[in-house]
Amino acid sequence: MKQSEKKSNSPAAATSEKSLTKVRPSGDDDDPNVEGRRRVVIEGLRPEIDGGRFPIKRVVGQSVVVEADVFTDGHDEIAGVIRYRHEREDAWTEVPLMFVENDRWRASFEVREQGLYYYTVTAWIDHFRSWQRDMRKRIAVGQEVTVELLIGRDLIKGAAIRADGADAERLNEIATAMEQGKVRAGTLKTVLEQNLTDLMARYADHPWPTTYDKELVVIVDRVRAGFGAWYEVFPRSCAKEPGRHGTFQDCEARLPYVAGMGFDVLYLPPIHPIGRTFRKGKNNDPNGNSDSVGSPWAIGAAEGGHTAIHSDLGTPEDFRRLIGKAQEQGMEVALDLAFQCSPDHPYVKHHPEWFVQRPDGTIQYAENPPKKYQDIYPLNFESDQWAPLWRELKGIVVHWIDQGVRIFRVDNPHTKPFLFWDWLIAEVKREHPDVLFLSEAFTRPKIMYRLAKLGFTQSYTYFAWRQTKSELTQYFTELTKTDVREYFRPNLWPNTPDILTEQLQHGGRASFMARFILAATLGANYGIYGPAFELMEQRPQKQGSEEYLDSEKYELRVWDLDRRDSLKELICQVNRIRRENVAFHNDQSLTFHHVDNEELIAYSKRSADGENVTLTVVNLSPHYVHSGWVHLDLQALGVRADKPFQVMDLLTKAYYTWEGPRNYVQLDPHSMPAHIFLIRRDLRTEHDFDYFV
Amino acid sequence: MKQSEKKSNSPAAATSEKSLTKVRPSGDDDDPNVEGRRRVVIEGLRPEIDGGRFPIKRVVGQSVVVEADVFTDGHDEIAGVIRYRHEREDAWTEVPLMFVENDRWRASFEVREQGLYYYTVTAWIDHFRSWQRDMRKRIAVGQEVTVELLIGRDLIKGAAIRADGADAERLNEIATAMEQGKVRAGTLKTVLEQNLTDLMARYADHPWPTTYDKELVVIVDRVRAGFGAWYEVFPRSCAKEPGRHGTFQDCEARLPYVAGMGFDVLYLPPIHPIGRTFRKGKNNDPNGNSDSVGSPWAIGAAEGGHTAIHSDLGTPEDFRRLIGKAQEQGMEVALDLAFQCSPDHPYVKHHPEWFVQRPDGTIQYAENPPKKYQDIYPLNFESDQWAPLWRELKGIVVHWIDQGVRIFRVDNPHTKPFLFWDWLIAEVKREHPDVLFLSEAFTRPKIMYRLAKLGFTQSYTYFAWRQTKSELTQYFTELTKTDVREYFRPNLWPNTPDILTEQLQHGGRASFMARFILAATLGANYGIYGPAFELMEQRPQKQGSEEYLDSEKYELRVWDLDRRDSLKELICQVNRIRRENVAFHNDQSLTFHHVDNEELIAYSKRSADGENVTLTVVNLSPHYVHSGWVHLDLQALGVRADKPFQVMDLLTKAYYTWEGPRNYVQLDPHSMPAHIFLIRRDLRTEHDFDYFV
Repeated sequence: MKQSEKKSNSPAAATSEKSLTKVRPSGDDDDPNVEGRRRVVIEGLRPEIDGGRFPIKRVVGQSVVVEADVFTDGHDEIAGVIRYRHEREDAWTEVPLMFVENDRWRASFEVREQGLYYYTVTAWIDHFRSWQRDMRKRIAVGQEVTVELLIGRDLIKGAAIRADGADAERLNEIATAMEQGKVRAGTLKTVLEQNLTDLMARYADHPWPTTYDKELVVIVDRVRAGFGAWYEVFPRSCAKEPGRHGTFQDCEARLPYVAGMGFDVLYLPPIHPIGRTFRKGKNNDPNGNSDSVGSPWAIGAAEGGHTAIHSDLGTPEDFRRLIGKAQEQGMEVALDLAFQCSPDHPYVKHHPEWFVQRPDGTIQYAENPPKKYQDIYPLNFESDQWAPLWRELKGIVVHWIDQGVRIFRVDNPHTKPFLFWDWLIAEVKREHPDVLFLSEAFTRPKIMYRLAKLGFTQSYTYFAWRQTKSELTQYFTELTKTDVREYFRPNLWPNTPDILTEQLQHGGRASFMARFILAATLGANYGIYGPAFELMEQRPQKQGSEEYLDSEKYELRVWDLDRRDSLKELICQVNRIRRENVAFHNDQSLTFHHVDNEELIAYSKRSADGENVTLTVVNLSPHYVHSGWVHLDLQALGVRADKPFQVMDLLTKAYYTWEGPRNYVQLDPHSMPAHIFLIRRDLRTEHDFDYFV
Repeated sequence: MKQSEKKSNSPAAATSEKSLTKVRPSGDDDDPNVEGRRRVVIEGLRPEIDGGRFPIKRVVGQSVVVEADVFTDGHDEIAGVIRYRHEREDAWTEVPLMFVENDRWRASFEVREQGLYYYTVTAWIDHFRSWQRDMRKRIAVGQEVTVELLIGRDLIKGAAIRADGADAERLNEIATAMEQGKVRAGTLKTVLEQNLTDLMARYADHPWPTTYDKELVVIVDRVRAGFGAWYEVFPRSCAKEPGRHGTFQDCEARLPYVAGMGFDVLYLPPIHPIGRTFRKGKNNDPNGNSDSVGSPWAIGAAEGGHTAIHSDLGTPEDFRRLIGKAQEQGMEVALDLAFQCSPDHPYVKHHPEWFVQRPDGTIQYAENPPKKYQDIYPLNFESDQWAPLWRELKGIVVHWIDQGVRIFRVDNPHTKPFLFWDWLIAEVKREHPDVLFLSEAFTRPKIMYRLAKLGFTQSYTYFAWRQTKSELTQYFTELTKTDVREYFRPNLWPNTPDILTEQLQHGGRASFMARFILAATLGANYGIYGPAFELMEQRPQKQGSEEYLDSEKYELRVWDLDRRDSLKELICQVNRIRRENVAFHNDQSLTFHHVDNEELIAYSKRSADGENVTLTVVNLSPHYVHSGWVHLDLQALGVRADKPFQVMDLLTKAYYTWEGPRNYVQLDPHSMPAHIFLIRRDLRTEHDFDYFV
């Protein structure tokens, strides 16, 4: 996965820039590879994460735009290519670099397959184009060019040797015409033509090319990695009758409801046997009783550990059937990976070496002093037996892959070593490039970014706590307009079983609507924890807490999915809008537009081809009607300043005709706190009318 | 000079972060060095240029402040050090990292010797400090801590084994007191004390440290590299009588004049025999005659090439004596390195392989089509014989080093390959770390920066063409507030023999004064081409040209150094101010302050210890008196907002008492277009009066 793991078969590697540091004139040094005539410099290559230590990420069908500063000494013309290849290809594909400005060059390529791609840049002096350029200047002032023509002739003759067929013939013909005494105006014209430039580019010699000193890596995932709507549900709460433990079959019965809302991924909290020792009661009561169902994250009991299934949920066959049924309805099942154990987990008995032993002979439970989590034993990654532990944990992932799972939501990855994830994800993806990992690391920013760099496909974000316009704008600018966008794929959750924000507790229906629309339109990937979300569950366990009252983490719940006030219709509508408008399928095009009211936020997204452009405006206040003037960045929208354009609200189907950057919006949070506009640029005029003219 | 040239003797290198990419649990891999328990991550290390490809620069006595993001999984405390060493030392010196914020850590070290220093970062989990922190929390809530004390005891016992003498005794004593049943309040207090933390930091084990994957390099130059005033003079114009070719002896007679103005470096254009073929006449006349002296940059004649001395200037002995006399007066002589040849250069005859041969048997002269420079043959660095050519050119440098030269001003380095300079400078500085190279590359920014990165000690800048406040502010912010400051040492020239700016042509005396003060106070290194500068020579060769009329490049000139209007007094005064105020000896502290008048620019500099602080204000208009309000960044000045402070104009000795950020300035360009204020913070009050109280 890392660049240094890859051996290049390319002959150019021997003359890579890295050997700069070893250059010695021959005679002083017996290294035959050094070459002091490499005159081109390549630097400032982008994208490149941490000096090439980490790959960038793309999904199939996206493009990689590569830029570099490329220049040489003196006045010679230069040329170059980006070279790229899929890990299974031996040969490089080359794309010519185009000049941008200020010694910056650019080219791009599309990634078409899952797995790893490599890319680098090679460039060289283009003596023929230098010659053509100078020749034009000489001719312009009427200089005598006899000798210069001979110089050009020699370059062309050299290329002719490397060409064959018609090309060789053509080159020789031109070279002959350039002999002294035969020069005519026609010849002069020919030697300066683009046709000859192109022909020479094919065959000209450039013996001392410079190749960038690194081969950089792209991880290419399947399309789902870049775009999807997630729905988290507790299978045990899928029963229709109060008090009955839900099963995979109940979950199966719930699929049409979830698929009907337009979700792509159904994420299940851990489905394994739950420990009995120190089992938690309702509302995280440390003194659970025999009625308690316990937390699904307290994994492992006598019946089994991370590869077993809780017997009340069903059998492995039931689970596989759930996966199959979900697929039939266009959804994937994502599983939780929580690498921790209940005191009853089989590992505790069979592998005590994977836990911290206390001096009194007990095993260290999880703590955040002074808090104790006695129902959880963390794994000890500083164990002497770390290597078998790593392999065992990989075995768990492989087990579920074998059951048909291809997406894992990883619980608290930041409490396990970075090196472990680095290894695990690379190991798994080498054989299963279609497997996706979502990092649930609600922690400090650099740790979240590091996990993304080392391989997590997607990451939870701070979205839940970014609520004001300036907070949202600043955070999403960081995520989509800096290098972060190359490796960190945000997945936006307005709620989770651990996070009921105060805004949702107090903002009522308008707040749920606004936060949902923000998540679904700011992020290509987003998710909700349901049915708590669509049923607007807003009671916290206690004042000032973000825990749900009567949380499903500790008890069975039954939900009335048919409640009239459910947000399921809105969710369905927004998910359909997301699917139909490919502008929403990327994060990188996100652009904020100024609104002269701090409670209104406006942002656009556009498809790679620029055809599909959306503009979302959200009233962030759950209480008041707000209006204001949007100051559009027309260039970001691909709209001309001098012609009217139409914006169609995809939620209400209302049309507005706008012109220029400044336009009025008004939003009532109690009816609909947002516009999701489609920008329509090709308004008909009288010129389009059949009988016009 | 490059990091990869260096072999590390450090055992930590085997566990460097780089091997991340090779981590496999043992058993899967037979590499014994991999270690999956390295839990600390080090990234975002600064300063680091182009991923460590290039060194940073410092002068003796300066410090290197190193920062990095350092963090681990979970909640453990971490600790770390920067490690640095001079190239001649085998052992690393360590400086503890201090926490800054947001996972950022910092430490610094001072470079005390010329040559190369290496630095890197190592960090590890600090189990004892984690234990102490948790223990404090447990005790605060009155938790039972019997087992936790045993855990701490084991950590302390482990350290005791590695300690000896009194330390071992003390550790064992504490460990014993921590045995179950003996715990008293005193013991609890002891185990949390800083004394024990320090003792444990000395002896605690951290078996799996992470070392940053690169050893970065500092080039440390002597102090002159960081601070100096240059004076360029044509020795052949040092004669007092018109028409006579000046000699080194005349130049010697000029020394007191130059030293008297306070200059540190006397830079001489090429002193070698000048070619006769196509020799240029006055004002660059392509048809010179036998009276023409030619351009000193048309190097080489039958008498010799780059190691020979023009016979009209004197002998090698004369030259060496000039160097000695300059030294006696506190100055160094800098020589020009112009690697190009006149058609009469001995190389043309003896090494035709180092030039481009044209098809008609002639040698290619320099061109910038359609312009021809037939008196100059460029060297062909694409020659098959490039390696002997490189060695020959190095020989030239070594020859002049042997004559006593330690500073070279390199003519047009951007027309010779980067690889060549990379090699040449490293080769020379390996044996002569005191040799300095000034890059005269007036070309595109990335090329100028590349030359600085690859080793040039100092660089000419765009200063001559940065004239408005916004131009100056933007450019000098780029040079002093971005990574550029780590490798690019600007040398500011208001004029050169090639550059008589239109501002100087038209701005009169005020313009010369202002541009001089700007150069000398914005840049720690600056230079003027004299006596043209101090005598305010302002006639261009023709309208719209930056060439001097009757340029010394093509003829002998005699100057009246005693003219009453000479700027020599001002120059002397400003150079003395620069020497006496160490704030001017660095570029990195440069800070611009807002002035509400676009014609007034204000900036401060401060010494590393913050004791010496200057504020320069310049009227950029050569025509009008301007006044305005300066809005000071008081923090940059180290001044309190609530107390008055004094500013003393070092030019006029006028004192002003200011208070707060907003203060009035007024400058008349016709008397003195600038203030150079010394900030005096310790104003006396009645409390300082002897009889007060």
